[in-house]
Amino acid sequence: MEKTTLYNYILGIADNNLILGQRLGELCGHGPNLETDIALTNIALDLFGQTRSYYQYAAKLSAIYKTEDDVAYLRKEREYKNVLLVEQPNTHFGFVIARQYLFDVFNYLFVEKLQHSKDETLSAIAKKAIKEVSYHKRFSGDWVKRLGVGTEESNQKMQEAIDGLWQYTNELFEMTEVDDLSVRGGIGVNLSELKETYFKEVAEVLKEATLTIPENPYFQKGGKQGIHTEHMGYILADLQYIQRTYPNMTW
Amino acid sequence: MEKTTLYNYILGIADNNLILGQRLGELCGHGPNLETDIALTNIALDLFGQTRSYYQYAAKLSAIYKTEDDVAYLRKEREYKNVLLVEQPNTHFGFVIARQYLFDVFNYLFVEKLQHSKDETLSAIAKKAIKEVSYHKRFSGDWVKRLGVGTEESNQKMQEAIDGLWQYTNELFEMTEVDDLSVRGGIGVNLSELKETYFKEVAEVLKEATLTIPENPYFQKGGKQGIHTEHMGYILADLQYIQRTYPNMTW
Repeated sequence: MEKTTLYNYILGIADNNLILGQRLGELCGHGPNLETDIALTNIALDLFGQTRSYYQYAAKLSAIYKTEDDVAYLRKEREYKNVLLVEQPNTHFGFVIARQYLFDVFNYLFVEKLQHSKDETLSAIAKKAIKEVSYHKRFSGDWVKRLGVGTEESNQKMQEAIDGLWQYTNELFEMTEVDDLSVRGGIGVNLSELKETYFKEVAEVLKEATLTIPENPYFQKGGKQGIHTEHMGYILADLQYIQRTYPNMTW
Repeated sequence: MEKTTLYNYILGIADNNLILGQRLGELCGHGPNLETDIALTNIALDLFGQTRSYYQYAAKLSAIYKTEDDVAYLRKEREYKNVLLVEQPNTHFGFVIARQYLFDVFNYLFVEKLQHSKDETLSAIAKKAIKEVSYHKRFSGDWVKRLGVGTEESNQKMQEAIDGLWQYTNELFEMTEVDDLSVRGGIGVNLSELKETYFKEVAEVLKEATLTIPENPYFQKGGKQGIHTEHMGYILADLQYIQRTYPNMTW
């Protein structure tokens, strides 16, 4: 498998973590209570930690970027390969939880398989990440149920979030050329194989939470090819601001 | 010692952690690089964790506030007892580091003594916190030196931060009536006894960092009595926004 393919494959994984971590980071100190605030910030930190490991590996393979920070901060919007789901805004707490849960279920299935990658670095990162990701899924799943069966208003808000975000779930399983090549090389995860389990598991939890899955949705995609929603520019402006102001902290 | 005195004493400690954590939280996802971003967010989390323990204890003593979150989010500006130092803004990275270091040296000396408090809860919180606080001091002290001796610009920026924040150092050792009563009750820490060690240690590190201590400063105070700088209102607006919008997360 070519170096460039592996490099792009790694970014496809890591960018999801970076952008979701960034979204959660916006909440730091703004959670609905101290406990949840701390939990969400801890999840952000887990995601940033994983991102760092992936980017360190990517930087070794890159001809352009020398460090993890270059990879994180210096790319153009079109070069970020995260799915659209993770860049969606913190509209309200229901959206934060729904976005997290819809990603976590995927991420858990994904990282579980990635542990068996023939690439030893990826496999090692996945083995380290699986516990964290498992905790994330439990946390967000518990909240989905809690808000779903809570009050009429909390149910409504959760439903609103599921309705708003459902259109981004399908992209999680989109197989790009890089995905195909990585699977054939024994390095990547076959996303198509995760899809059934994902939708089955999510459907069960939503049912338990007395929430319904939108019918006949029009699924959005594009993130994996670098074509993002209008939110992405703001996230990157925010993310890259300090790096671009003080390049490499040379002062 | 009266319940109210103990309650106020606890807030005096915890509010410093809350407000400094909140300031650091503003940086989450905006650090100059991934490593520093993660480190600063971890420090914020340590501070929030300690805050929670203190507020849980305070809520038990309070006739008004039932939970740690009520204590954190529902008070008026005049009821927050943090020192002015911790509310100062993240003007630039030099300010973030200087504010952290000037607080950490104090906080380490303080928590070290608090371990020996006759109040078992406070002593237990301090025993748990001391390792974290020790790490914070090492982290911020290392950065002070690194930026101080780095480049001409980094030295200038650190000096600017020290010049701007030095006026808030003295308040750390101000003994309020609540401090006096708590010391007499064997529960509180005598801040006057920490002062010499503090200024000696800070002077040594600044010297090593080729930074100078401002001469004849006019020292500010007021935070401990609830009289804050103009920044505090914005921090609280930010901190209390979600709680006030969704009281107790009833939805």
